[in-house]
Amino acid sequence: MKEFSIIGKDVPRTDGEAKARGAAIYTDDMKLPGMLHGRILRSPFAHALIKSIDVSRAASLPGVKCVLTANDTPKIKYGNWRLFPDTQDEYPLAIDKVRFIGDEVAAVAAIDKDIAEEALALITVEYEELPAVFDVDSSMQTGAPVIHDYCPTNVSVNRKIQYGDVEKGFAESDYVREDVFRVHSVSHAYLEPCSALAQVDLDGRITLWSSTQVPYIVQCLLASTLGMRENDIRVIKPYIGGGFGGKMELRTWEFCAALMAKKTGKPVKFTLSREEEFLAGRRRHGMKLHSRVGFKKDGTLVAKDLRIQLDGGAFNAMGPTATFLCGNFGAMLYRYPNYRFHGEHVYTNKPPASAMRGFGAPQSLYATEIQMNIAAEDLGIDPVDLRLKNAQVSGDKIPDVATISSCGFVESIQAVAEMSGWKEKRKNLKPGQGMGIGCYSFISGGVFNWFNTQYPFSAAEVRAFSDGTVHLLTMASDIGQGSDTVLKQILAEELGLTMADIRMTSADTSMTPQGDLGTWGSRVTLMAGNAVLDAAKKIKEQLFGAVSARFNLNVVHEIECKNGRVQSKARPDYGMSFGDAVAMVQKANRGEPLFARGSYTPRDKGLVTPAFGFGAQVAEVEVDRETGLVEVKQMWTAHDCGTVVNPRSVEGQLAGSIQMGLGYALSEQFVMDKGTTLNPNFVDYKMPTAADMPPSEVVHIDTYEPEGPFGAKECGEGLASPTAPAISDAVYHATGYRCKNLPITPEKILQALGEKK
Amino acid sequence: MKEFSIIGKDVPRTDGEAKARGAAIYTDDMKLPGMLHGRILRSPFAHALIKSIDVSRAASLPGVKCVLTANDTPKIKYGNWRLFPDTQDEYPLAIDKVRFIGDEVAAVAAIDKDIAEEALALITVEYEELPAVFDVDSSMQTGAPVIHDYCPTNVSVNRKIQYGDVEKGFAESDYVREDVFRVHSVSHAYLEPCSALAQVDLDGRITLWSSTQVPYIVQCLLASTLGMRENDIRVIKPYIGGGFGGKMELRTWEFCAALMAKKTGKPVKFTLSREEEFLAGRRRHGMKLHSRVGFKKDGTLVAKDLRIQLDGGAFNAMGPTATFLCGNFGAMLYRYPNYRFHGEHVYTNKPPASAMRGFGAPQSLYATEIQMNIAAEDLGIDPVDLRLKNAQVSGDKIPDVATISSCGFVESIQAVAEMSGWKEKRKNLKPGQGMGIGCYSFISGGVFNWFNTQYPFSAAEVRAFSDGTVHLLTMASDIGQGSDTVLKQILAEELGLTMADIRMTSADTSMTPQGDLGTWGSRVTLMAGNAVLDAAKKIKEQLFGAVSARFNLNVVHEIECKNGRVQSKARPDYGMSFGDAVAMVQKANRGEPLFARGSYTPRDKGLVTPAFGFGAQVAEVEVDRETGLVEVKQMWTAHDCGTVVNPRSVEGQLAGSIQMGLGYALSEQFVMDKGTTLNPNFVDYKMPTAADMPPSEVVHIDTYEPEGPFGAKECGEGLASPTAPAISDAVYHATGYRCKNLPITPEKILQALGEKK
Repeated sequence: MKEFSIIGKDVPRTDGEAKARGAAIYTDDMKLPGMLHGRILRSPFAHALIKSIDVSRAASLPGVKCVLTANDTPKIKYGNWRLFPDTQDEYPLAIDKVRFIGDEVAAVAAIDKDIAEEALALITVEYEELPAVFDVDSSMQTGAPVIHDYCPTNVSVNRKIQYGDVEKGFAESDYVREDVFRVHSVSHAYLEPCSALAQVDLDGRITLWSSTQVPYIVQCLLASTLGMRENDIRVIKPYIGGGFGGKMELRTWEFCAALMAKKTGKPVKFTLSREEEFLAGRRRHGMKLHSRVGFKKDGTLVAKDLRIQLDGGAFNAMGPTATFLCGNFGAMLYRYPNYRFHGEHVYTNKPPASAMRGFGAPQSLYATEIQMNIAAEDLGIDPVDLRLKNAQVSGDKIPDVATISSCGFVESIQAVAEMSGWKEKRKNLKPGQGMGIGCYSFISGGVFNWFNTQYPFSAAEVRAFSDGTVHLLTMASDIGQGSDTVLKQILAEELGLTMADIRMTSADTSMTPQGDLGTWGSRVTLMAGNAVLDAAKKIKEQLFGAVSARFNLNVVHEIECKNGRVQSKARPDYGMSFGDAVAMVQKANRGEPLFARGSYTPRDKGLVTPAFGFGAQVAEVEVDRETGLVEVKQMWTAHDCGTVVNPRSVEGQLAGSIQMGLGYALSEQFVMDKGTTLNPNFVDYKMPTAADMPPSEVVHIDTYEPEGPFGAKECGEGLASPTAPAISDAVYHATGYRCKNLPITPEKILQALGEKK
Repeated sequence: MKEFSIIGKDVPRTDGEAKARGAAIYTDDMKLPGMLHGRILRSPFAHALIKSIDVSRAASLPGVKCVLTANDTPKIKYGNWRLFPDTQDEYPLAIDKVRFIGDEVAAVAAIDKDIAEEALALITVEYEELPAVFDVDSSMQTGAPVIHDYCPTNVSVNRKIQYGDVEKGFAESDYVREDVFRVHSVSHAYLEPCSALAQVDLDGRITLWSSTQVPYIVQCLLASTLGMRENDIRVIKPYIGGGFGGKMELRTWEFCAALMAKKTGKPVKFTLSREEEFLAGRRRHGMKLHSRVGFKKDGTLVAKDLRIQLDGGAFNAMGPTATFLCGNFGAMLYRYPNYRFHGEHVYTNKPPASAMRGFGAPQSLYATEIQMNIAAEDLGIDPVDLRLKNAQVSGDKIPDVATISSCGFVESIQAVAEMSGWKEKRKNLKPGQGMGIGCYSFISGGVFNWFNTQYPFSAAEVRAFSDGTVHLLTMASDIGQGSDTVLKQILAEELGLTMADIRMTSADTSMTPQGDLGTWGSRVTLMAGNAVLDAAKKIKEQLFGAVSARFNLNVVHEIECKNGRVQSKARPDYGMSFGDAVAMVQKANRGEPLFARGSYTPRDKGLVTPAFGFGAQVAEVEVDRETGLVEVKQMWTAHDCGTVVNPRSVEGQLAGSIQMGLGYALSEQFVMDKGTTLNPNFVDYKMPTAADMPPSEVVHIDTYEPEGPFGAKECGEGLASPTAPAISDAVYHATGYRCKNLPITPEKILQALGEKK
């Protein structure tokens, strides 16, 4: 493999010092002269008609500058799935009807937050309550309350995949296993609540700073909902305190800030409270999964039939993507010669679920992995061996979905088994102790153009200067995952420069090159990375030409950018500094500055992704049989993210994934009563803390992804999946309790233990 | 001539509303968290050695965060004339020696301005006073105090021009006139005092907001004086309250703000007081002009010998350019078959003179025009006729200098004579009344690359979007003259769009395309305008291709951008909206956004300028013979600026020129006593106000400059020249007092009248 200078090195994150020192400016840190503060009035009912809204008292409260209801807006529907306008089911403010507790009904902007809050209480809304549904079973029943008139079944999206002959497959199977799993909804719990600040210029153009993963999507949808032209709106992404999928749509406060700025001429800022985030924020889809798998006696997989109902809450949000991806993930990891999937996205009167780290994989793979463990036991095959027997490998095709290029899955399973001492240690654990395994595969960005972008999926501009520096411009959005650092590393590596030689401007829709679809689906390293590489290669071509001409090099001579120089590879003395080479190109172009645009759009890569990450994880737990409390004693992870661009960032991603996986498996859940969230705060919503983190050991499987920059692919989301099934399997191993209904609470364990007694 | 949609129309200035409403943000309006306020310690001596500086008491004053003297700086000389490093004679803070009263010795940054001011008083500087010189005659004497060691003659720049045979010319002349003129120094008196705000990021890169005409020059010189790389410095030009040439260099406060930001990690802002501006600010060169001209009896010009000593003050600043231009302007307006020029830039112990509106022309042409009037009288020829006889016309070559392309000079003289009723009215004025004439020519930007830029002289990027909007990016600097409006008009005209379709980003060295040399020499409309046109034409080529392909047009078919459409000129129904055409180009480029870079660098245009403006002016005055007060009763102006892009802006330029010309002629001057300015405020420095403005009538001479965008050339500086000679000639006509020593004060008039009695 190629020797790298910067790729694979522990380069400090470019945002690290700013964040550590408190110098990083987040949206809510921003103050503009005359700025107003916005608050949102939310529905107290899960399902109700709005008969009337009287804002007169609120509007006349001193200090209140603007009150909005749907009637003050253009009433244009929107949603991320622009390719299928039928799926666009949302308005910024509720029209005639509310669909969940927390649904946005009105907004106030005032000279301070307290006055805005006070004004909310002065708005009188007359509701007529309607019957509501809170789970997919009720919602899909005949005669259930209809949540959207256009969708009388409450099933807004159907996704089917089928290949092979599933029924024949089951008929030919020696062992068929069928289970129903229920997985719950959890919160992204990003540390920075959503925040948006809008300013209007005297031409009527809007600048929006927003805590978003998707500046371009917000630009487009804000324009369409306001009836403005896209490029009369500029979206800038400041530092972001996490997103995890929860900030990838246009949201009400972004719209209201912009419209109120237009109406008042003053900057308007909205920042959600933590309570609002928990009560009404986006979340991971709860799902009901019905999975049937058939094996030969020897463990060979023959068929799989997967039906999933996603609890979408009141709107589609990113549900259509999750529905699609559940089916794709259901066909991943193992070779299913015959596969059938039917996903249904179901409306309920709850806050909308949407994208969240893993995007369908944690749910879909929970079913996959638990069933693998059940089958292994039933077939008398070690779970590791059963996996190895069926594991997907490089070159495998999933019909209609993808061809797997690089794949370190087998090596991951082997490595994690070896690290954990699986075969020996698992046999010799004490009572109450257990070991379990879970695996994953994940996408490196999506291929399917649901947003119907007209631009490349990712783009970059590189400007090179005779002082030896370069300026990288990209609309890629670092939301805390460290992508700015990674993109700079890729550029520095390709141009033979240091990190300090690069100035970077990112995620400003009016300054950085169109387009980029934002941060989701673990797309940035591969896609934006490829765009950066593309631009860098174009720069190099010009530098190489200058050096070749200057030193009269033979046309077959290889030239390289290395250590700040552009030089003949064979004769480095035939060369010059990077800056001097830039100056020569400029001279050759009679002064024109040297720059290049690069882009990346996946083509001929199936429907899902250009590259899959893989991995496996083993958890060791100890269960207190008196209290039902699960202590995770150790995690072992082996994963294949292709080339590791930044080891520390990968380490951070893994640690974060395990932390979220822990919470998903054991402690996090929205405790709800008929649409009301009863635990809307970090005291009652039990997110694992640093103190809860188990010791962790990690092996990177060495693969090279041909489609990725320097061989890299995803590393940030895949690992959101295996932790829950690994822990769940370990709990089963320790207690005999097989959880099919996440999370694994002490109550459930105790109940199961009690039943066994 | 072509029918224009937007060129030549009274388009409101894009900055008008913001300025009228107080929404325009100037540098001093900016506040950043933790920002420090800087003040400068200035020399109380005109010429002295610095024996020691003790800043300890200042540094320990609570609230003081940084104190700088030269010893804290890299001590790198700088100056705008990078092509000739010998001319670079300045340090940001004085080293070992001060050279004028107000010379910058030290700087303090503190948590507020008052503390910074208090700290200045705590700095102890031990000086050893040296003999000083305050005028060019004394400075050039043998044995005069030497101001810069490298320059024992005190003459830092010599510029000679010679063509024909001047002595032979005088020998063949029937009439030779020789005069010595002295013209004085005046202040730019821009309404916004200089201000700069620097911020350093954690990577050590600096962002500087500055009230400057030349962001790129400041970027480069700030980098070199700090020992940093150019592109680690970003200079942003906010709204600017005028410059007139006074803000076209790197200045001490820009350097100190940047260095102090680096040292403290905090933003640092400096804003000069009005008193500082008057005491130590840049100013127009005072000059001593020795001019000899020879005529044939019939008025034909035969020879001219012009010697000028420029009073440069303590540093070169933009003096070298002024020295060069004085010689060029001396050869302009009339045909001199034999011409000789010797310009000397002379150091004195006064604040440095530098560029100011007209850049050598108001001084040089004062001599030209007054001598023309004297000669006319002596030769018995009407001054208008004498001018018409010798006037330069299109196609005239000035050896080594330029070829005149468009030229409406003859028409200007004729028009102004006709408008003013010159021949009749002048004969019939009452005693004490007079009419006088003055003419001008001026450059439309400079050709000579004194800054040694490696980039195009002007550049622009145009991004076109499918929503029908475009984004114009340029480093051109609107400093209040309205160039942003003009550049948008040029783009809108070329692309058939409206002003509202254009978003503009200008004058940000890290975001707008390299390069642009800034705003001076009336260069922006022609040079940046050409760059914008170049980019727009490249956009059009692509749009035309798309439309041609879509409608299967014959290759000879002309296509146009008009009224928001791209269409066949002959068959407008073969066409589509601008936005749809952009979308087609994007589709053809598989999603790549449509953008184009354009640039302009004058080549093969001599040494001076690509295009000259011309004009003539007549003033009518009435002189109170008791008080010596001059009332200007009427101004008539005819001028040739090529195509008038924005009539209101041109009107504004003319009004402003007349206002400055009035002050230059009659009232403005630095009253100085041995290097001390005695009138450093707007009460004692007598700038004409709106109430002093005479009625004014203007005719635009209709010409088309082939080198300019849509035929446009300069309109903002040329008219700084004719007002003073026209008024001076009118005063002579009214009183018999011929002023050879500006300004024309009541005292001088009374003295002259007294001598005549």
